[in-house]
Amino acid sequence: MPQLRKDPIVDQWVVIAAERGHRPTDFKPEAEPPSSGFCPFCPGNESRTPPEIMAIGRNGTAPNTPGWKVRVIPNKYPALAIEGGLNRQGYGMFDMMNGVGAHEVIVESPDHQWQFAEAPLEDIRDVLIAYRERIVDLHRDPRFRYSLVFRNYGVRAGASLAHPHSQLISIAVMPRRVKDELKAARDYFAHKERCIFCDIINQELMLNERVVVQNEHFLALSPFAARFPYELSIFPRRHRHDYTLMSDEEIWGLAHIMRNVLKRVKEALNNPAYNFMLHTAPYPNPRPGRPEYWGTLALDFHWHIEIVPRLTRVAGFEWGTGFYINPVAPEASTKVLREVEIKE
Amino acid sequence: MPQLRKDPIVDQWVVIAAERGHRPTDFKPEAEPPSSGFCPFCPGNESRTPPEIMAIGRNGTAPNTPGWKVRVIPNKYPALAIEGGLNRQGYGMFDMMNGVGAHEVIVESPDHQWQFAEAPLEDIRDVLIAYRERIVDLHRDPRFRYSLVFRNYGVRAGASLAHPHSQLISIAVMPRRVKDELKAARDYFAHKERCIFCDIINQELMLNERVVVQNEHFLALSPFAARFPYELSIFPRRHRHDYTLMSDEEIWGLAHIMRNVLKRVKEALNNPAYNFMLHTAPYPNPRPGRPEYWGTLALDFHWHIEIVPRLTRVAGFEWGTGFYINPVAPEASTKVLREVEIKE
Repeated sequence: MPQLRKDPIVDQWVVIAAERGHRPTDFKPEAEPPSSGFCPFCPGNESRTPPEIMAIGRNGTAPNTPGWKVRVIPNKYPALAIEGGLNRQGYGMFDMMNGVGAHEVIVESPDHQWQFAEAPLEDIRDVLIAYRERIVDLHRDPRFRYSLVFRNYGVRAGASLAHPHSQLISIAVMPRRVKDELKAARDYFAHKERCIFCDIINQELMLNERVVVQNEHFLALSPFAARFPYELSIFPRRHRHDYTLMSDEEIWGLAHIMRNVLKRVKEALNNPAYNFMLHTAPYPNPRPGRPEYWGTLALDFHWHIEIVPRLTRVAGFEWGTGFYINPVAPEASTKVLREVEIKE
Repeated sequence: MPQLRKDPIVDQWVVIAAERGHRPTDFKPEAEPPSSGFCPFCPGNESRTPPEIMAIGRNGTAPNTPGWKVRVIPNKYPALAIEGGLNRQGYGMFDMMNGVGAHEVIVESPDHQWQFAEAPLEDIRDVLIAYRERIVDLHRDPRFRYSLVFRNYGVRAGASLAHPHSQLISIAVMPRRVKDELKAARDYFAHKERCIFCDIINQELMLNERVVVQNEHFLALSPFAARFPYELSIFPRRHRHDYTLMSDEEIWGLAHIMRNVLKRVKEALNNPAYNFMLHTAPYPNPRPGRPEYWGTLALDFHWHIEIVPRLTRVAGFEWGTGFYINPVAPEASTKVLREVEIKE
């Protein structure tokens, strides 16, 4: 069973997933995952993955056979174990609990060569719907406080398989970065009675220096204090705290802007590795005697997607300080990304 | 002039160092720095670096000529500019200031092949003394709140030159990670009237599961909630808040334990890339009307060095949550590192 351990100084949880069984000699320089050869995510190989949790697009075909458009399965090498209780405990001065959680893979297409930046809008909509269904379903498990959807594309971004996929992790403690965002939104709302993200969005639209693209429902911008070159954030233009409450029309808008910005990133930067991460409101999970601010309905939050092309190395200065050095001004990357010609 | 910009949500400063002038096509996959060819840090090439700030071991030789053992120079491509005022300003909702700071390189040896893990103790002592001298000297500049010494070894750790060197950055705002550590130490002391690091050290010595090596003055341990496989921390055994106050005898002890653990890491993990970072107390810099806790003498802090071998990739889950997944239990890495045979 993996463990969650808390750093006693900086209040940060770490997953100790020793089941993955690394010996010292197992750490090798990474190579690009092979683009040919056996692929467990390709149609016909369904029996080589753990049994599917859900699929989109089956027209009467049986689970774990071909005929799907999007397929969700448990991660074969999960960082967390789905069975068991949390068993929160002390260990001298330290805090720990069982590493209980869900770790799922969203296989985005049967096509091994499928790309987010090039796909039909319908395909992307199906992927975005799969994210929604899984976040909603995992909410039924009272052990979980938060679900994070993320995508690692390319070996520099941590991908170990080439077949297009995203991942989802549900976890029993609030991630620190999300907690910081929730707290900032809560504090700002207490002071101003407005959403901090809405205020930033309005200012960015007014200044028009860092907005890369917009449609009726969404905008994509380069954050004012971007940590990484060509970092982007996608926000709903109207105040929305919860990804899973998106209307059908909004999902089309999100599919459109996601494809649009990932295409711009691909063209401007020669198909770089990237990560994207979805930050939505946490599960409202208040418990007796634990009235933590993130345990209540986070109506003052504003969900968003962060996209980070992996162009530079994080080194000693960044690890030592939590500070980042970004060699490209967000206004300059905005200009480059705006100038990419998109045929839609 | 580089800029410092503050993320309005998570209270994190970022250096926008656009002077380094990256075009989109400049981001290439990194290769190991060449180990032969022209090296600006080798003796005889002193005129090809910015003028030296200090040197150790000169026996009457002139600055910027050979004859040094350790040589400190300004970084030729600094992330921050040494001249100018801070000019703190708002920009709508945002906060920014000039990217003023020092960015220095500590060239650790004239020998291009010199290694921290193999060097004579005298050489390492000289490097540790250079760190001390530079931190003390930069304290004279009232603009700076903190100096971070760090070392990037190997291309996966962000090194761009093969010649052995460390770096130092002095900066006008407190780095967030150091601020979190200082605040934890201050809060714990207020509650217990003891140092949180001293308590952790005592518990670790008692349990003896994660202590890799110790000598009279220092110990090296695998942190209970290590973020990365084979991560290590080195602490003075007695309560010491400030690196620069080390006695001569303590410096020998630090040189000994640094070489010892870096040799263990090298042998156990086949000479991996790594970063190390020195966290010492900040400059006591109280100003009228700004009685921040980190502006006063941080006697409740306990300085330490963090060593992070770069064996795994940080991916979407880590960026999205601030959570880390470590595939090796700290007790297991401790056992491996303890078993390395060291001849001293």
